[in-house]
Amino acid sequence: MNIGIIGLGLIGGSLGLRLQKNEHTIYGLTNNPLNKRKAEARKLANFVSCDLNILKECTLIILALPIKELINPSKALIKAIPSEAVITDVGSIKEPIINTWEKIHPLFVGSHPMAGTEMQGVDSGHINLFDNAKWVVTPTQQTNPKSLSTIKNLIQSLGCDLVEISPSTHDQSVALISHLPIFLSSCLIASANTTKNIELLNTSKKLASTGFSDTSRVGSGNPHLGLDLAHYNKKNIIKSLSMFKSHLNDIEKLISNENWDKLLDQLEKNKHSRSDFCN
Amino acid sequence: MNIGIIGLGLIGGSLGLRLQKNEHTIYGLTNNPLNKRKAEARKLANFVSCDLNILKECTLIILALPIKELINPSKALIKAIPSEAVITDVGSIKEPIINTWEKIHPLFVGSHPMAGTEMQGVDSGHINLFDNAKWVVTPTQQTNPKSLSTIKNLIQSLGCDLVEISPSTHDQSVALISHLPIFLSSCLIASANTTKNIELLNTSKKLASTGFSDTSRVGSGNPHLGLDLAHYNKKNIIKSLSMFKSHLNDIEKLISNENWDKLLDQLEKNKHSRSDFCN
Repeated sequence: MNIGIIGLGLIGGSLGLRLQKNEHTIYGLTNNPLNKRKAEARKLANFVSCDLNILKECTLIILALPIKELINPSKALIKAIPSEAVITDVGSIKEPIINTWEKIHPLFVGSHPMAGTEMQGVDSGHINLFDNAKWVVTPTQQTNPKSLSTIKNLIQSLGCDLVEISPSTHDQSVALISHLPIFLSSCLIASANTTKNIELLNTSKKLASTGFSDTSRVGSGNPHLGLDLAHYNKKNIIKSLSMFKSHLNDIEKLISNENWDKLLDQLEKNKHSRSDFCN
Repeated sequence: MNIGIIGLGLIGGSLGLRLQKNEHTIYGLTNNPLNKRKAEARKLANFVSCDLNILKECTLIILALPIKELINPSKALIKAIPSEAVITDVGSIKEPIINTWEKIHPLFVGSHPMAGTEMQGVDSGHINLFDNAKWVVTPTQQTNPKSLSTIKNLIQSLGCDLVEISPSTHDQSVALISHLPIFLSSCLIASANTTKNIELLNTSKKLASTGFSDTSRVGSGNPHLGLDLAHYNKKNIIKSLSMFKSHLNDIEKLISNENWDKLLDQLEKNKHSRSDFCN
């Protein structure tokens, strides 16, 4: 199949590498000549261009752009997409993107590969990013069934684990399991980075070990992604923060009141239930 | 050297394996016959026993017991430790342990290897646990200089990175970079594990990916350790929780008020400063 990938960052670049392995012909679109040269050198696509006209060749187009650009697509991009091509996106929020694109194109299907690293940009894509990854597809009542089936086949051809849910459930869920961790991680770093006591700060920098490193990892992701998530999934993130704070206040109270039995119960319960999320 | 290790769990068992490689003779003490058999099968020490009398042979003794037992050691244990042996512990809190042991033994030196996994018990020790690990030593004005130098030599002989600080700075620092992450992780799991909406819960269980897994990892550690940390490092943990909540409230306000420029600044600052802690 001739597949267009718009944006050759972490997700787009990884997809370009991976889809070529399945003998698709990849048309990669990037935004400037420097990224074009880098993408060509890394062979992220069979053809790399800064010219939207290459999309004419494509029967399937993957929008691998930042959330902001997915929600506010340029007129030129909208115009360049062939009316008969099937379109999907890889944005990590679904409702606002789907609201935008269902108005633009009848063959649009929202999707979200649950894969990532803290890297970004044209240098960050790698062929194994989607190995064993979940890939969510979020059809609505408006979704064209044939387009949906094209996208599902593509996802399964990469060996990904297909999950089909509503856009709203997706956005609530990722607020809890993907976006909330980013803001917690970021605040953990801020807490450790206390500059009021320099000896303490220097000691913490020396002693931080695997526990800190793992818990703070997603806090070192792309800040513009964190911002876009907060912006476009605000309602669900605020709700998740509020749930988290309620649990944290409970734990704090148990510690303050030296209610050790209940604290142990809570730590045991949470330890136990983690295995349902990480298996 | 004849080295006694009291407790053959994750830290004690790993030390037993690692120190034998350096041709020390290890006397491992465990608390029941089943663990004795397991420890022998895993060769965690040259001699494994449930009898405190084996400590008579040792010139250096490592207390690898749970914090609670370090702070409230049994009379039998105190009696069994030879007066001329150098003693250290591996507890992850230092002030209360040092307060206890400096009264018990003149050759006690507090220490803390910064290594761990979410595993526990006699099956969990492994020979590489201390590779590239930081190992803190926390002398006080009372510490015997010769004992201190014995413990420092031991730490360095394992290739660990020796850090020397005061017990108080240690306990404040680990509250921030090691204990706080445990309670955050645990509360993150509790937040995702919302049972009010079963479709959402099931979706979250399916979609949780590397971000959730990393951020929640230390929340699946030994609940009894979490409890002991809360109990014996209460003051510093309450302070850390309060700092964290203040940062989280700030982030929440920026999101609520759609103060995107400041939110981006904060995410960028935290991302940037993480590299000082994880390198």
